[in-house]
Amino acid sequence: MDPAAAVVRWGSAGLRDRVLPGLSDGSLLAGFCLTEPEAGSDAASVRSQATARTGSWLLDGAKVWVTGGRWADVLLVIAATAEGPLALLVEAGGDGVRREPVEDSLAMPGAGLADIAFDRVEVPADAVVGRPGMGLSHVAGVALANGRLTVAAGCAGLARTCRDHAVAHARSRRQDSRPIGDHQLVRRLLARAGVASNSADLVYRWAAAGLDERADDAGHRAILAKYTAARAADEAADCATQVLGSAAFRAGHPVTALVADARVMRIIEGTDEICESVIGETLLRSRGDSGR
Amino acid sequence: MDPAAAVVRWGSAGLRDRVLPGLSDGSLLAGFCLTEPEAGSDAASVRSQATARTGSWLLDGAKVWVTGGRWADVLLVIAATAEGPLALLVEAGGDGVRREPVEDSLAMPGAGLADIAFDRVEVPADAVVGRPGMGLSHVAGVALANGRLTVAAGCAGLARTCRDHAVAHARSRRQDSRPIGDHQLVRRLLARAGVASNSADLVYRWAAAGLDERADDAGHRAILAKYTAARAADEAADCATQVLGSAAFRAGHPVTALVADARVMRIIEGTDEICESVIGETLLRSRGDSGR
Amino acid sequence: MDPAAAVVRWGSAGLRDRVLPGLSDGSLLAGFCLTEPEAGSDAASVRSQATARTGSWLLDGAKVWVTGGRWADVLLVIAATAEGPLALLVEAGGDGVRREPVEDSLAMPGAGLADIAFDRVEVPADAVVGRPGMGLSHVAGVALANGRLTVAAGCAGLARTCRDHAVAHARSRRQDSRPIGDHQLVRRLLARAGVASNSADLVYRWAAAGLDERADDAGHRAILAKYTAARAADEAADCATQVLGSAAFRAGHPVTALVADARVMRIIEGTDEICESVIGETLLRSRGDSGR
Amino acid sequence: MDPAAAVVRWGSAGLRDRVLPGLSDGSLLAGFCLTEPEAGSDAASVRSQATARTGSWLLDGAKVWVTGGRWADVLLVIAATAEGPLALLVEAGGDGVRREPVEDSLAMPGAGLADIAFDRVEVPADAVVGRPGMGLSHVAGVALANGRLTVAAGCAGLARTCRDHAVAHARSRRQDSRPIGDHQLVRRLLARAGVASNSADLVYRWAAAGLDERADDAGHRAILAKYTAARAADEAADCATQVLGSAAFRAGHPVTALVADARVMRIIEGTDEICESVIGETLLRSRGDSGR
Ligand SMILES: Cc1cc2nc3c(=O)[nH]c(=O)nc-3n(C[C@H](O)[C@H](O)[C@H](O)COP(=O)(O)OP(=O)(O)OC[C@H]3O[C@@H](n4cnc5c(N)ncnc54)[C@H](O)[C@@H]3O)c2cc1C
Ligand SMILES: Cc1cc2nc3c(=O)[nH]c(=O)nc-3n(C[C@H](O)[C@H](O)[C@H](O)COP(=O)(O)OP(=O)(O)OC[C@H]3O[C@@H](n4cnc5c(N)ncnc54)[C@H](O)[C@@H]3O)c2cc1C
Ligand SMILES: Cc1cc2nc3c(=O)[nH]c(=O)nc-3n(C[C@H](O)[C@H](O)[C@H](O)COP(=O)(O)OP(=O)(O)OC[C@H]3O[C@@H](n4cnc5c(N)ncnc54)[C@H](O)[C@@H]3O)c2cc1C
Ligand SMILES: Cc1cc2nc3c(=O)[nH]c(=O)nc-3n(C[C@H](O)[C@H](O)[C@H](O)COP(=O)(O)OP(=O)(O)OC[C@H]3O[C@@H](n4cnc5c(N)ncnc54)[C@H](O)[C@@H]3O)c2cc1C
Repeated sequence: MDPAAAVVRWGSAGLRDRVLPGLSDGSLLAGFCLTEPEAGSDAASVRSQATARTGSWLLDGAKVWVTGGRWADVLLVIAATAEGPLALLVEAGGDGVRREPVEDSLAMPGAGLADIAFDRVEVPADAVVGRPGMGLSHVAGVALANGRLTVAAGCAGLARTCRDHAVAHARSRRQDSRPIGDHQLVRRLLARAGVASNSADLVYRWAAAGLDERADDAGHRAILAKYTAARAADEAADCATQVLGSAAFRAGHPVTALVADARVMRIIEGTDEICESVIGETLLRSRGDSGR
Repeated sequence: MDPAAAVVRWGSAGLRDRVLPGLSDGSLLAGFCLTEPEAGSDAASVRSQATARTGSWLLDGAKVWVTGGRWADVLLVIAATAEGPLALLVEAGGDGVRREPVEDSLAMPGAGLADIAFDRVEVPADAVVGRPGMGLSHVAGVALANGRLTVAAGCAGLARTCRDHAVAHARSRRQDSRPIGDHQLVRRLLARAGVASNSADLVYRWAAAGLDERADDAGHRAILAKYTAARAADEAADCATQVLGSAAFRAGHPVTALVADARVMRIIEGTDEICESVIGETLLRSRGDSGR
Repeated sequence: MDPAAAVVRWGSAGLRDRVLPGLSDGSLLAGFCLTEPEAGSDAASVRSQATARTGSWLLDGAKVWVTGGRWADVLLVIAATAEGPLALLVEAGGDGVRREPVEDSLAMPGAGLADIAFDRVEVPADAVVGRPGMGLSHVAGVALANGRLTVAAGCAGLARTCRDHAVAHARSRRQDSRPIGDHQLVRRLLARAGVASNSADLVYRWAAAGLDERADDAGHRAILAKYTAARAADEAADCATQVLGSAAFRAGHPVTALVADARVMRIIEGTDEICESVIGETLLRSRGDSGR
Repeated sequence: MDPAAAVVRWGSAGLRDRVLPGLSDGSLLAGFCLTEPEAGSDAASVRSQATARTGSWLLDGAKVWVTGGRWADVLLVIAATAEGPLALLVEAGGDGVRREPVEDSLAMPGAGLADIAFDRVEVPADAVVGRPGMGLSHVAGVALANGRLTVAAGCAGLARTCRDHAVAHARSRRQDSRPIGDHQLVRRLLARAGVASNSADLVYRWAAAGLDERADDAGHRAILAKYTAARAADEAADCATQVLGSAAFRAGHPVTALVADARVMRIIEGTDEICESVIGETLLRSRGDSGR
């Protein structure tokens, strides 16, 4: 979910001029609105509706789980039209947009999550990103490839932080008058966290290079990186929890927040199962060396 | 941590008469106080001190993470003495006993967890369970074997409940106009939860039979059951989380509580690592078929 | 694959009298012929053909991977007919039956594996087991439920033997002037093999009880047991290999044969994937507590 | 085990001139002799003995499992001396050197494995690599770092080949009149093989860069790469076996050889357990970011 990347690639010149400077210097924040209560893994069943008017579109629908939705200035919204899925860049502060903070999320509580309803919101025609019918395959496709890279990079950070907490605890916690890090089984936990952190690190950098170089397989790399790194982060979080023992269950310990965040990474931007299906299918379609 | 079992096996006739009726009809509740801030996996480094007086013991020390500690009427406390570890059954409401509820535990928040400090608490001589020196090897040994069985049984319940939540969600949640349970990868998650639930179930019943029959390997069965069932519960909780998707991250969803509870089972009553060491050692020592 | 069980349940009185005494005292050996080169996991695409004649059937087709096929006296063959799948008990020494030993199998080399071709084999009408159309759902169903139990029991034995080899090696092999069993990481391998062996043991006994008691869920138990036990055997074999180190790679070491046998158990009588699909589906269909 | 790297780093000028040209153009082959029947993971307990003479050393001992030992022209041998471990570059064709091919290895049968005995072999003083006492810590250290990189690279190739066999089979094998690759559970197996192959690939390239750049953490990278890649190769081999089904158990199928080779990679050049201990210890010792 990287709306800016989608605008760079598919936005009109006018739209790009209007929002990209702000998006790149951080004065403007964007959110991505794909998921609906009844449309999670299956993006194609989005029910939000965009109706063509003269010179504008009328948007109705309800989106959930928008990361940064509480703060966003603009929202990249995927809606259904008669001609297929459409992507629109909507002003978050405009008439008819109502945001409801998600207060009860165990994961990413600091990420400004919001549910967002659109009630007869009028969107100017030049806010269309791409063309009708391209909303999912092309526009959301770009947003997702970049978004998966972001998730992968975040997972690498999560994994490393978990590893570091585990190492620090294994150095200082003593049982039996020596540091628990003296025990082979604790070293094994540290090693597994370290290996996970390292794998996440390497795979997100490789995917980033793919996007930078506009490699043909950039999308494949991004999903592979997201899947690998999310599982690595979850593994590192599990190792850290185990090394910490009961200390990992006191609310407020820094690792507890990492555990939920790492776990949710195996759900967002394509669940493990969706990633496995897509990666498998890509390998089946690839010829020769391309299916790296 | 089953203090009653320890009293049955090692308590004096007077003590048994005094507390067992209440412990069995539920009018009296017991807690087990082994863990200290600096003594977790290494029970031998307990620093709580019991000093012999004429006709009584004087107890000083601080215990943490006592399950049921908030409600307990009696506490089985392990303390160091000049002659080795001692087990004492202490009145929880007596002078010098101060309980501090653990408010911030992510796991088992409804289990009445408390930290408990003992400040010059006088304990009558007939409240000694076993003899000085036997506190860990014999008395806590019995409490732990029974406690591990209890944990294993609890894990079987956790695993089954996770499985059932996953199955229910897979039946009702639709994506792409059919139940997600139609997808092989979701069925795999259900199957794994089902297998985990079943394994936990079988292993705790087998350990229970071992204790009932006073089998020679009852202690071995209990630790094996605890280890197997805790890992099974954690696996089932992971599967349920995955089947639920984002729904598993709304606080209040019944599965979220199960996730933390299942995870902590791999820490309490012997961490995974302690269990692996002990089980491995038992196998090395066993002859022939005994090391089932 | 337990042809005798299918005859007990679905054979005519004449057939039962003719073959069951020999099958139970071991003077008669049976094989099960379901798999064909193009019909593995998908039993429904069997191409072997049985054509109705007056008072007999004419059988044509080619079966592969028949366990015990080299020695079998009778073969339970699944073939297609106009009325659906049919099960026939065929004399292995009869006219038109040609057996080709499978010489190059890495797994179960001592199991008398054979490929078997049937060329216009005449089979008397009373050798039909069940009725046309019931060959897969009913007759092979019974054979598979019993066969899965047999596989599960075999896996429990494999797992235990692997565990015992690992324990014996960990006791005797010295590095650094002490037994390798002194190291926690080796104990962990032993513990995992022990846990696997124990889980396989418990689950096959539970499934056996289900068949003995003609429990409603006997078929479910059998597939769950086969899946659990096969994975446990594979895990135990992996642990044993690791404990043995390079010694596990000298042909002739007893563990090398166990490794291949344990691995193939995740393929035969329903691959892991088929088991996961079926178990998941059963859970989705079950009501309340039945889906144990 | 890369003897050439050790000579480059620690050989005398004379020795380097004598053997490096041949080792780099391939006209000279080298083997590495560390392991002995009683010295596997614990290299420090090597019993082969080198005794100082005037201007030469006398070497006695027995080495096993020497990769390429059958063809090697020179052998880097680690032996004990009064001053600690010594590394010697020995002529494989010289007097007193007896090689016995390892005929019964299931892994790497084409790798020219040999057991090699040294019976009063006279080795000129300038064939010493490094100095007495440095044989393990410095000389074998370099050989192992480079050797681990080689193993990691080999594992990446194994993983990729397994993945490709799995993909090819999933495309062509039909069950139920469609390619098995249509099933999600088969796609999952392909995805996991693909992810494993990719992780192995990235990690060995990263370790290679570390050695090229003489990074401080080059040794750490090498062991981390070896561990990660060996486990990835084993995972990919397991996936390929599963996708192939019974076809993976016919001797001669290309995947069967890969399975044993991938498995042995978790044993050689430091078993999984040794790697876990060492990586864990390195993390415990590292400060700040260095423990990548
Ligand atoms: C913290 C957080 C932040 C988020 N941020 C955003 C955001 O910024 N913008 C946005 O649009 N969305 C966002 N989401 C939503 C997220 O993208 C969805 O949760 C995700 O796509 C999964 O959808 P779902 O939760 O509805 O699960 P479901 O799709 O209902 O999945 C349930 C289960 O079914 C499985 N399943 C579903 N379909 C298939 C299939 N075809 N084959 C196999 N298995 C299948 C899944 O793998 C999963 O196991 C966020 C979610 C969270 C929790
Ligand atoms: C919810 C909850 C309820 C509890 N209830 C009770 C109770 O009723 N009564 C009671 O007395 N206690 C109770 N406890 C405490 C519990 O028994 C301890 O948490 C447990 O024994 C582990 O100790 P620790 O948390 O101090 O971890 P530590 O012992 O510090 O362990 C940290 C890490 O080091 C590893 N480690 C430690 N020693 C070794 C070793 N020798 N070899 C290899 N690895 C090692 C551990 O496996 C772990 O990974 C409870 C804890 C919780 C969280
Ligand atoms: C040692 C040995 C002994 C045997 N003994 C007998 C015997 O006595 N009698 C007998 O009849 N047969 C026997 N078999 C055959 C055995 O039953 C088959 O190997 C098994 O059914 C799998 O078929 P396959 O090998 O053709 O694999 P395939 O069916 O080709 O499967 C290949 C891969 O595709 C997957 N797959 C296939 N269909 C699906 C699906 N619908 N969904 C998801 N994944 C799928 C599989 O899980 C597997 O990963 C034996 C085999 C061996 C190796
Ligand atoms: C195909 C092949 C090629 C080889 N090529 C070479 C070569 O070219 N040159 C060469 O010198 N050697 C070579 N070897 C030998 C290889 O390096 C050894 O097999 C390896 O070091 C392990 O030693 P081991 O097999 O004796 O196992 P052991 O050391 O006996 O290990 C047995 C088990 O104990 C565990 N263990 C041992 N010590 C510890 C410890 N301290 N802590 C925790 N666990 C421990 C191990 O992890 C393992 O699980 C080769 C081996 C093979 C199979």
